[in-house]
Amino acid sequence: MDDPQELLSLCKRRGFLWPAYDIYGGAAGFFDYGPLGAAMKVNIESHWRRLHVLEEGLQELVCPMIAPEPVFEASGHLDTFADMYVECTGCGETYRADHLAEGLHDNPAALKDKELGDLLRKNDVSCPACKGELTAPKRFNLMFRTSVGAGSAKVGYLRPETAQGMFVNFSQIYRFGRERLPVGAVQIGRSFRNEISPRQGLLRLREFNQMEAEVFFHPERKTWPRYGNVKAEMLSLMPNNGPPTSMSLADAVSSGTIANEALAYFMWLTQRFAVDVGVDPARMRFRQHEKDEMAHYATDCWDLEAETGYGWVELVGVADRGCYDLEAHLTHSGADLTAFERFDEPKEITKEVVRPKYDVMGKLFRGDTKALAGIVAQLPPDAVRDRDSVQVDMDGRKVEVPSTCYELAVTTEKISGDKFVPHVIEPAYGVDRILYTLLEHAYRVRDDYVTLSLKGLVAPVKVGVFPLMARDGLDDIARRLYDSLVGEGLAAYYDDSGSIGRRYARMDEVGTPCCVTVDYETKEDGQVTIRDRDSADQVRVKLDDVICAVRNMIEGRSPQSPANM
Amino acid sequence: MDDPQELLSLCKRRGFLWPAYDIYGGAAGFFDYGPLGAAMKVNIESHWRRLHVLEEGLQELVCPMIAPEPVFEASGHLDTFADMYVECTGCGETYRADHLAEGLHDNPAALKDKELGDLLRKNDVSCPACKGELTAPKRFNLMFRTSVGAGSAKVGYLRPETAQGMFVNFSQIYRFGRERLPVGAVQIGRSFRNEISPRQGLLRLREFNQMEAEVFFHPERKTWPRYGNVKAEMLSLMPNNGPPTSMSLADAVSSGTIANEALAYFMWLTQRFAVDVGVDPARMRFRQHEKDEMAHYATDCWDLEAETGYGWVELVGVADRGCYDLEAHLTHSGADLTAFERFDEPKEITKEVVRPKYDVMGKLFRGDTKALAGIVAQLPPDAVRDRDSVQVDMDGRKVEVPSTCYELAVTTEKISGDKFVPHVIEPAYGVDRILYTLLEHAYRVRDDYVTLSLKGLVAPVKVGVFPLMARDGLDDIARRLYDSLVGEGLAAYYDDSGSIGRRYARMDEVGTPCCVTVDYETKEDGQVTIRDRDSADQVRVKLDDVICAVRNMIEGRSPQSPANM
Repeated sequence: MDDPQELLSLCKRRGFLWPAYDIYGGAAGFFDYGPLGAAMKVNIESHWRRLHVLEEGLQELVCPMIAPEPVFEASGHLDTFADMYVECTGCGETYRADHLAEGLHDNPAALKDKELGDLLRKNDVSCPACKGELTAPKRFNLMFRTSVGAGSAKVGYLRPETAQGMFVNFSQIYRFGRERLPVGAVQIGRSFRNEISPRQGLLRLREFNQMEAEVFFHPERKTWPRYGNVKAEMLSLMPNNGPPTSMSLADAVSSGTIANEALAYFMWLTQRFAVDVGVDPARMRFRQHEKDEMAHYATDCWDLEAETGYGWVELVGVADRGCYDLEAHLTHSGADLTAFERFDEPKEITKEVVRPKYDVMGKLFRGDTKALAGIVAQLPPDAVRDRDSVQVDMDGRKVEVPSTCYELAVTTEKISGDKFVPHVIEPAYGVDRILYTLLEHAYRVRDDYVTLSLKGLVAPVKVGVFPLMARDGLDDIARRLYDSLVGEGLAAYYDDSGSIGRRYARMDEVGTPCCVTVDYETKEDGQVTIRDRDSADQVRVKLDDVICAVRNMIEGRSPQSPANM
Repeated sequence: MDDPQELLSLCKRRGFLWPAYDIYGGAAGFFDYGPLGAAMKVNIESHWRRLHVLEEGLQELVCPMIAPEPVFEASGHLDTFADMYVECTGCGETYRADHLAEGLHDNPAALKDKELGDLLRKNDVSCPACKGELTAPKRFNLMFRTSVGAGSAKVGYLRPETAQGMFVNFSQIYRFGRERLPVGAVQIGRSFRNEISPRQGLLRLREFNQMEAEVFFHPERKTWPRYGNVKAEMLSLMPNNGPPTSMSLADAVSSGTIANEALAYFMWLTQRFAVDVGVDPARMRFRQHEKDEMAHYATDCWDLEAETGYGWVELVGVADRGCYDLEAHLTHSGADLTAFERFDEPKEITKEVVRPKYDVMGKLFRGDTKALAGIVAQLPPDAVRDRDSVQVDMDGRKVEVPSTCYELAVTTEKISGDKFVPHVIEPAYGVDRILYTLLEHAYRVRDDYVTLSLKGLVAPVKVGVFPLMARDGLDDIARRLYDSLVGEGLAAYYDDSGSIGRRYARMDEVGTPCCVTVDYETKEDGQVTIRDRDSADQVRVKLDDVICAVRNMIEGRSPQSPANM
């Protein structure tokens, strides 16, 4: 698509989505979904929930959107989740400093405040709107801040991602999973980023919708029960150290292209989801993050990207984040965010220890012997090896203990399992970007006739119901048909105004997979005409078979396929 | 239920819900939903969406949660959405001032700042926690405030209700409804209130979930297409001017107990929804607001209340809000938030007007005649009737016009329709309170054995699947059965640990309607045992019929009912 404006204008006119707060002059970075957009959003989220919660068994959580400050101190957002901005001293407009430096440097976002300021000044960059002078770049934290409670209120922030709600609840998730790994949670919901200059339609919003999963693994066993079922499937990959390629999961893991089986599995699931909802496989790829693009703690990270009128756009990020997140919260909160894995058999661990000699010690240290022996027994063997004495601290007093008071010995103990901080793999989906991409990839224009070839799964209206004429009982038959479709949970649209051609056009433009027309013959033979959106093929079907035919067409089958496919 | 704590403890232990941010010492007024609570929430919202969007044809919107200040200037929230609080000068704790005055006055919430302060002082009310001295009451706006954008940022607020998103989009809603009334929209989503002292579990949250509908009507035609279908159904009413009663919709409207048919219809729909999801009809009533409790613009307002361990609790408010909301936004934004209703036939309107006499005027006023005649023609007839002259303002100059310059005349004009600000009826549902009530009303204890008798529609897990032993191929059969149930979209739980009795108990405690056990006979006869949660009845069913039997039991029918009921 050359110009997304054409699609955005259709979206507004037909009720998919539009910029919010129009009657108050608008508010940049905020969008409304209308009835068609909201239905698509529900359909996208339901399918994702079905794959992740029902089929993979991940636990859905619903956490608050406001979080207290310590959560983001721990996560690092308070310190590092910031962009730099400049302000026009003339008109007061604000800009992302790195956006103004595009073309002046390879990667302006990586520059420090002063470097970026120097670059802009050296190139005489002025306000794009009024040519006014710009301030030096300032750092701006992208979290919306608020205060909670009356009186001496506490600082709170709107979450910039849903992920933290799952990390802080790790112990619960682990317990509900009956203390076995891997175990995972998901969250579907709104997140907030106070973007300095929101732009590009739905791509950079201040409020946006996420679907995120956090799946926890033993650091040495990063695989997934169903990996074996899909390891021969192909992924379209753009690795950071070689040319684009198509590779099976198994090959990608064994060649080290993808870090581990679990990551490969969740990339595959991402691809499956994207294809299911209608991202065009020919305009989709996994791009691996460059080494310097990846967070320092991440082991590997791949973005599912789609090609749109805005260029290649990130729809989903799938990252192996190591133990970074849990460890950060463990350190900051002091809570025990570890997992415990019992060995099949207890293991015997042999180790060297320092063993006090009470008899020798007793003569030298008298009443201090017991306390001193306890301290000596805790010393690491290397602290005493090959030395004549060791100095220890007893209640703030330095005591020199000669080597005659202890010996090195080897002991054996049984341990029943392993306590560790799990690693996490995080697939993070942007709902709004996905929804927009589906609209773009479904958009077809031929001789000014617009069709949205949306997948039946996500189409906001599943079937149009038309009486040829709104009289002679045709309307009654059509109404009853409409009611029975709705009774089956199928979103139907009743339309009795204008020519049948115009009614088809209205439905094609919003992506309705099929339309049913009740005509005068229906009264004779009890049959109706069903028309397919993409082929415009029409077939006659008995009234009793309409529901089955519509279900077939929603799922991309021929209307007359047998019911039990 | 005497003590909600018992239920809240089950909720936390089994993963329905718990207070949020526990590892950081908690944050009052914020809760997490765990996997079972999240599934119930999805089920509640899906059923509401099905009734309101699919069946009633209301349009779903998804609007931002942050709104710019003018929205709440118009809605009145900025001025009036406030409570009074007092702060302890000793320990710094804050309290709702009216809560501390309970028992000291009939309706402390209705008192003014000073009156409330005097009342507390006179009664020597001190800090409940430390007995410290309290400050005088201060007003506190309950909206969370934030700022949007970098640099000279704009003030924004987190929405305290989803309603405003629908009012500001009225023109879109009206257009998508093809400019016919009644038309309505709904929104399902999070809202925020910065409560001074959140308490009572899920009843007073700082973040909560709403389902709201805004249905727009012609002021003189407040009815709904399906009203006729349900007008004989009964409602349990507690009117503000008489004793509790049970009354049909038709009687309630004709007796003036409920203001109009549309309000009665949406009350009925509220009752239907509540019963569908499992509110106990014997612990449920509609309470009409007292005259002084109702907003000044509201025509009528009824709360659906349920009896719980916290007393009678409002679950839903259904209000006729007149034209208040649209008129407020029309006035503040200047946008045309009106509807237009074309008459079947254009109407002839006869009216009295003031008609200037140009000839007389021309002699007296020369060059000013045209302008003056224009002004005079706009005067209301009563301004000139029976008077010798009239004084008008022309460009800031007072001009006395004698009655010889004009006459009263009667004219006739054709008008094609009626332009007006629609009235709105608003059903507003609190999801969290409903969810909590369902748990309470489903909670049964007998000899320490806990069963949650949740309706199948809302139960988070639909079916438990157990191999009698996790070996001998029973586990393989059970796994395949589990997969086929999940493949049908049914939330199933696989459990192979502990005795069958313990596994039943685990499922009963979380409200799972039925459990299927695969035993050694299954290998012989291909049948499994299905057990009903509430009756503990068990029947044998063929493996091929399990899905149908489970569907029957979810919908409250016998497992062996015919498939096509």
